[in-house]
Amino acid sequence: MFVMKKIGILNGVNLNRLGLREPEIYGKTTLEDLENNLFETAKTLGVEIECFQSNHEGALVDKICEWADKGFSGIVFNPGAFTHTSIALRDCIAGCNIPTVEVHISNVYTREEFRHTSLIAPVCIGQIAGLGLAGYDLALFWHANVNGALLVTK
Amino acid sequence: MFVMKKIGILNGVNLNRLGLREPEIYGKTTLEDLENNLFETAKTLGVEIECFQSNHEGALVDKICEWADKGFSGIVFNPGAFTHTSIALRDCIAGCNIPTVEVHISNVYTREEFRHTSLIAPVCIGQIAGLGLAGYDLALFWHANVNGALLVTK
Amino acid sequence: MFVMKKIGILNGVNLNRLGLREPEIYGKTTLEDLENNLFETAKTLGVEIECFQSNHEGALVDKICEWADKGFSGIVFNPGAFTHTSIALRDCIAGCNIPTVEVHISNVYTREEFRHTSLIAPVCIGQIAGLGLAGYDLALFWHANVNGALLVTK
Amino acid sequence: MFVMKKIGILNGVNLNRLGLREPEIYGKTTLEDLENNLFETAKTLGVEIECFQSNHEGALVDKICEWADKGFSGIVFNPGAFTHTSIALRDCIAGCNIPTVEVHISNVYTREEFRHTSLIAPVCIGQIAGLGLAGYDLALFWHANVNGALLVTK
Amino acid sequence: MFVMKKIGILNGVNLNRLGLREPEIYGKTTLEDLENNLFETAKTLGVEIECFQSNHEGALVDKICEWADKGFSGIVFNPGAFTHTSIALRDCIAGCNIPTVEVHISNVYTREEFRHTSLIAPVCIGQIAGLGLAGYDLALFWHANVNGALLVTK
Amino acid sequence: MFVMKKIGILNGVNLNRLGLREPEIYGKTTLEDLENNLFETAKTLGVEIECFQSNHEGALVDKICEWADKGFSGIVFNPGAFTHTSIALRDCIAGCNIPTVEVHISNVYTREEFRHTSLIAPVCIGQIAGLGLAGYDLALFWHANVNGALLVTK
Amino acid sequence: MFVMKKIGILNGVNLNRLGLREPEIYGKTTLEDLENNLFETAKTLGVEIECFQSNHEGALVDKICEWADKGFSGIVFNPGAFTHTSIALRDCIAGCNIPTVEVHISNVYTREEFRHTSLIAPVCIGQIAGLGLAGYDLALFWHANVNGALLVTK
Amino acid sequence: MFVMKKIGILNGVNLNRLGLREPEIYGKTTLEDLENNLFETAKTLGVEIECFQSNHEGALVDKICEWADKGFSGIVFNPGAFTHTSIALRDCIAGCNIPTVEVHISNVYTREEFRHTSLIAPVCIGQIAGLGLAGYDLALFWHANVNGALLVTK
Amino acid sequence: MFVMKKIGILNGVNLNRLGLREPEIYGKTTLEDLENNLFETAKTLGVEIECFQSNHEGALVDKICEWADKGFSGIVFNPGAFTHTSIALRDCIAGCNIPTVEVHISNVYTREEFRHTSLIAPVCIGQIAGLGLAGYDLALFWHANVNGALLVTK
Amino acid sequence: MFVMKKIGILNGVNLNRLGLREPEIYGKTTLEDLENNLFETAKTLGVEIECFQSNHEGALVDKICEWADKGFSGIVFNPGAFTHTSIALRDCIAGCNIPTVEVHISNVYTREEFRHTSLIAPVCIGQIAGLGLAGYDLALFWHANVNGALLVTK
Amino acid sequence: MFVMKKIGILNGVNLNRLGLREPEIYGKTTLEDLENNLFETAKTLGVEIECFQSNHEGALVDKICEWADKGFSGIVFNPGAFTHTSIALRDCIAGCNIPTVEVHISNVYTREEFRHTSLIAPVCIGQIAGLGLAGYDLALFWHANVNGALLVTK
Amino acid sequence: MFVMKKIGILNGVNLNRLGLREPEIYGKTTLEDLENNLFETAKTLGVEIECFQSNHEGALVDKICEWADKGFSGIVFNPGAFTHTSIALRDCIAGCNIPTVEVHISNVYTREEFRHTSLIAPVCIGQIAGLGLAGYDLALFWHANVNGALLVTK
Repeated sequence: MFVMKKIGILNGVNLNRLGLREPEIYGKTTLEDLENNLFETAKTLGVEIECFQSNHEGALVDKICEWADKGFSGIVFNPGAFTHTSIALRDCIAGCNIPTVEVHISNVYTREEFRHTSLIAPVCIGQIAGLGLAGYDLALFWHANVNGALLVTK
Repeated sequence: MFVMKKIGILNGVNLNRLGLREPEIYGKTTLEDLENNLFETAKTLGVEIECFQSNHEGALVDKICEWADKGFSGIVFNPGAFTHTSIALRDCIAGCNIPTVEVHISNVYTREEFRHTSLIAPVCIGQIAGLGLAGYDLALFWHANVNGALLVTK
Repeated sequence: MFVMKKIGILNGVNLNRLGLREPEIYGKTTLEDLENNLFETAKTLGVEIECFQSNHEGALVDKICEWADKGFSGIVFNPGAFTHTSIALRDCIAGCNIPTVEVHISNVYTREEFRHTSLIAPVCIGQIAGLGLAGYDLALFWHANVNGALLVTK
Repeated sequence: MFVMKKIGILNGVNLNRLGLREPEIYGKTTLEDLENNLFETAKTLGVEIECFQSNHEGALVDKICEWADKGFSGIVFNPGAFTHTSIALRDCIAGCNIPTVEVHISNVYTREEFRHTSLIAPVCIGQIAGLGLAGYDLALFWHANVNGALLVTK
Repeated sequence: MFVMKKIGILNGVNLNRLGLREPEIYGKTTLEDLENNLFETAKTLGVEIECFQSNHEGALVDKICEWADKGFSGIVFNPGAFTHTSIALRDCIAGCNIPTVEVHISNVYTREEFRHTSLIAPVCIGQIAGLGLAGYDLALFWHANVNGALLVTK
Repeated sequence: MFVMKKIGILNGVNLNRLGLREPEIYGKTTLEDLENNLFETAKTLGVEIECFQSNHEGALVDKICEWADKGFSGIVFNPGAFTHTSIALRDCIAGCNIPTVEVHISNVYTREEFRHTSLIAPVCIGQIAGLGLAGYDLALFWHANVNGALLVTK
Repeated sequence: MFVMKKIGILNGVNLNRLGLREPEIYGKTTLEDLENNLFETAKTLGVEIECFQSNHEGALVDKICEWADKGFSGIVFNPGAFTHTSIALRDCIAGCNIPTVEVHISNVYTREEFRHTSLIAPVCIGQIAGLGLAGYDLALFWHANVNGALLVTK
Repeated sequence: MFVMKKIGILNGVNLNRLGLREPEIYGKTTLEDLENNLFETAKTLGVEIECFQSNHEGALVDKICEWADKGFSGIVFNPGAFTHTSIALRDCIAGCNIPTVEVHISNVYTREEFRHTSLIAPVCIGQIAGLGLAGYDLALFWHANVNGALLVTK
Repeated sequence: MFVMKKIGILNGVNLNRLGLREPEIYGKTTLEDLENNLFETAKTLGVEIECFQSNHEGALVDKICEWADKGFSGIVFNPGAFTHTSIALRDCIAGCNIPTVEVHISNVYTREEFRHTSLIAPVCIGQIAGLGLAGYDLALFWHANVNGALLVTK
Repeated sequence: MFVMKKIGILNGVNLNRLGLREPEIYGKTTLEDLENNLFETAKTLGVEIECFQSNHEGALVDKICEWADKGFSGIVFNPGAFTHTSIALRDCIAGCNIPTVEVHISNVYTREEFRHTSLIAPVCIGQIAGLGLAGYDLALFWHANVNGALLVTK
Repeated sequence: MFVMKKIGILNGVNLNRLGLREPEIYGKTTLEDLENNLFETAKTLGVEIECFQSNHEGALVDKICEWADKGFSGIVFNPGAFTHTSIALRDCIAGCNIPTVEVHISNVYTREEFRHTSLIAPVCIGQIAGLGLAGYDLALFWHANVNGALLVTK
Repeated sequence: MFVMKKIGILNGVNLNRLGLREPEIYGKTTLEDLENNLFETAKTLGVEIECFQSNHEGALVDKICEWADKGFSGIVFNPGAFTHTSIALRDCIAGCNIPTVEVHISNVYTREEFRHTSLIAPVCIGQIAGLGLAGYDLALFWHANVNGALLVTK
């Protein structure tokens, strides 16, 4: 029996404000719009996704554990501000051993000094930053075709 | 008259060794293989690409100037070790004002401390790191459909 | 129709222990006493206040979002230990764009080194520190008469 | 009337994964196994214990407050990753003034640089690190016979 | 015989330019206007004030000594740029043992890095920053009713 | 033929002053008292111990080599001030490959900054700190029952 | 009516010792010689100059304010040791908004580390360093012909 | 036989873009314009100049060696971004022992932190920064009349 | 004709408060008492002294210049807080080239971190710290018999 | 058929100035003299050498690649100033996997701070520094007899 | 019965080389000469001294313990290089609680950076540095008349 | 009468464990084997050697003094862990003024951070690191033919 790959879309703290907060930077797309679009992308790619957002670090840890236990094949994770402060999320990803691609909407390297350091990065497969909301699609695209080889050869 | 978008694929120092150097990490794909594949991807995406590699920082500066003068619409740039040392390349990208996506094959955040700082990053649109050679395809894909909105909505 | 200004009084982690913890430093006033007194002050000043305390960073983020959505005109915020670690709260205040005065009961500059850095401060209007519980009153007083001019001229 | 000493066994973030995560390092004992064993040890020592684990920083702060209010005589605390980031837990232990022994299963000094600094340590009685799960037993043993004198003289 | 409390209003280097310098930031109120307003506030509060401004660090040290010797009950002090460089003023306040509230008109935490460190802060009672000229009134208000308890209970 | 486990009790610089120096901190137990008590503990545990103290770094290095050559199964080591300065002792423990538990009588994390760094820690099995002289007993207890599993299951 | 440009020549702390102090480094020209020469240069250039030296930081602040109020068109400023310590002078130049060229007689970059940082530099137009007393003439020359274009084209 | 002094005008990386790049900052003068103007200035001053620009660090090193061997009496050098990264150019200037004046068009102290450190500065005679293209003229003027004494006395 | 050696006794900022400020640390001897005692000591040693105290950095610079010009043979200097901030005084001592012994009443190494660095120390002959007011006598004694050889051999 | 070992002698930036530059430090031996002598040494040792010097980082990278492709058995490399700045050369040596001995003529540890860090060192077999030109001979000698055992036993 | 005060003269590592090592800096007085002179000084002052020198840190620790046990009233201690590395000697002095004056022959603040930090200083009464061998006499003089008051009043 | 050059072979802490400790890294050659081999090498080179090893820093200091006094012409010194901690050995080598070549068996730059700093290096002639036991032979070879010129020319 065929089982579709499952991929988790995880958004951290303050991302519930997407589209409402600083629209001149982030545009007017809300979190709901983003998630709806990603369901479309997922359909095209033939994978199943589940979306979750929380402002609570502990709830994100719980969710990663849950997805790992359910056999998800990967996570697309925008930790928001937890990127720079959460060793707990770092340990969780490392311990659950689930391939995670870190996504940032804006180019964090043009912002404050303390945003240049990611505690999450060393336990992820890789990062996509500064490419806007398209970064989620690219990360999802990568998970669907994952192996690090040239994509076109698939 | 229709003119195809032109995008430059720029590889910096030591990337001529791709496929030869540390194959257990980077796989056996050579620079030539990579570039051939990207020509295929470009054809699919309906864009034109030009590829260039050099071990000489000055030659890379010269090439970026040249592409800017010729009206290229974007650059996919893996600077190699120059990422961490070249203020000259940084100034060049900023001065030529050409949209550039920085690509790293490996996850630089799992490597030596001095590789965690990119002088190039703040003048680029964004970064893709750790996603293997596929990172070049994703960056090219982004340039071809660039606007930071959700890709699927296009 | 006249609508009274609404101001949020927000207390962060461990402030539920006020009056119980280290009374020789903080006195015997409990959080409930403090809040009751502030209701009195508010009545005098002709403003409405709402009080909230939580030990959960995410719950504080949620509350700031809620108050911003309800059109509160300002927040008096003592983040407790989150002052020094929470980029999430910083991003939230900045994103919700609600005028916030940071209050600390004790003079943080006479305590441990790590308490000298506030991640919250740069996104606030200003700070009052070391003036005891009176700091809450002064901050509330300022919000009620806010404009940065000399108070006496009002 | 005789009342048995009560001691809290507190486990922080990601310790729910014990025995599941990286078993080659931590062995196959689960959190449940650990807690069951500690109930045995407690019986032998003539003390009562209560066990609690959470991935939520705020929930741990709440629990410490609760145990302090209930008159527990000590805590055995493995904060997990919160060791290095939580000023909130530090303030809570200091404020509740309850004797706490910090336990780490692995030798944190052979791991990443950022794990060498404990924000919790200065407000604890002491630390036991690197002695495996036995560290919990030793800490419990110490609490049951606490006074810093030579144990054998008791 | 009744003697009114005396409080010193001390302004440091460059504050003679108030209202003249960068009016778009600081407004058009001059130092003289500020002082006149504070005399009004003082009258209302039933305290006596004396005002002094100097661009000379030594003159400020001399004045603090003088006020301490004359039995002033407190100082409201905006040290200007000396905040960040003067150990001499720090020692003077500590040595004279006179309760001092540090005031900054602007939020120093949104300005240059070197303005984030105050050498004066650890020897003051507390700080008020970023609340504009009203900060002087609030500090004076606090001195007149000083004890760190809730103001409304007075 | 049965051979009892041998464990070395090693005390470094200034520990000859135990009980004489700063008795209000360390109590009045002398080094001799401590060692006599440990002989009692050892008898109970069915292991043999040998005790050595020196103020000479070289003599401690010599002794560790000697014990390693004689097949001791472990060391309980309080290096005193050498904890923070001796790479020589670190190399010696690593080179001799003998399981060592580092013990500190006081909680070093509440003392001067330079006492927070242990050069010895990364080559030891683990540390016990702040639990008073009982720390020696606990370490000895651990060596006698060593395996990192739960003690009660033995 | 024609009014000659006025330019202030400002010398800071210890420059009264010029020609007397360390003559093997600075030559035998005294401050008076320097100023007389600059009057000659000014005559040639058709500008008016006023010279002032003080060892008192506050007196320099006062003078800059005075010159700004009198409508001087520029300042040539050698702050001496105040270069590295005076935020007060920095704020004063920024606040008075008068074009200032910083001059150093010796090459400060070949001297002690703490002389490499100038607090004054970011609020000046530019710097001339290491070119001896001629640096004053060049700065004066620049003020007389100021616009940043090529001089020869004038 | 009379031989005119020869002075080298050396421009480093990206200065070929002068007048093209960020004209709102640097104006519209191109490198060619600059060099033509300097030939005029040189004629007036009675010295001979030679101009060279390269984006290649090695080529600049080669040129300095060549000019030193040919007996040039000085260099006016704007290293561009190499200012902050090239120990090679530093060693070259020091080794060739040719008097060099470092020139920067903009005030580097108002730009990014990493531009505040010059590796070249300690081996140069001095620096001129922030005075626009006029800085080249002033440096040339200084070389033509070099000795560090007052210019007007010549 | 015989001329007695002249030695300057220089006290910096806040030392006018001696005996008044923190008497439990510094005793009840006032600056006047100290100076009177030193006149006695000087008489015994057959040298002449002049005493000066100021809270103004510039006034201290002026005085050192004056004493150097008058041919004083040495200075005993307690800079107070200027020890840690005044490059101006450092340059002055170095430039005037007058042998200076730095004196501190208390042991600065047991106080705040920022008091451990002396900008004055590298340009002095040496330092005496922590030996109370006797430090002035010892320094004066040394100046009177100066040569660095053993004193008893004189 | 017998094939002699081939070893590359690689000299980096500014080493073309050997014997010309600072002869009082480096002696009068030119690069040509050095290379001729090394051909003699090589003959004696029965190995073949090839010599190359360049001031261009890219050219050195190209040469190392070329020698690795041609099967050279080792490199003797004096990178000059590139030692401290070139991650590119570091990556190249690591990637080409060719045994390299780093040589410095002078003792870099007695020179400027920034010369104490070698980016090249961690990817080399080892270093010889401060032993003058003889360092090249010793390195060559080692390559000819390489195995890390005692040389005399060969 | 009258008992003379006993004071220990303790010299640390390398001070056995006094008079032999770098005589142009330290003069030709040997350790033996120094000690003989101090016996003379002691006789004059009516105190008894004992001298000890060792290159072994442990031997110095042993000696301080011994002198403390014998009731010496003070130590004059030149630790040599151990000043900067020995926490053991620091702990020993603090633990033995014997008043110690640290002496350095040269002005350590004009030497290498690592000589500016003394681990010994915070546990001593005070320091005398840079005053040559006379520093020993002054320290002995202080011990003989110790109380921190003005010496002349005795 | 002909006297052979004498050279000291000095091995520091833990090197008595050579061949026993971590043989997979250091091989099976013991210290005795190494010294026997070096006697062979010395015979070939026509020099006399003396070997000494100690785990005691003081004993090494004593030995260097002794060899200097006996007129040895050089030392080959592997300080082991003392490399990174002993200012005492540094001062001793500098003071005795005896040419010393520092040897490390392994490439210290590929090991822990704290092994990258050598306190000994700045006072030695030079270093040989990472070339295995052969490093001793090369250093001895250099001492026997010392002058920094090309070896082959001898």
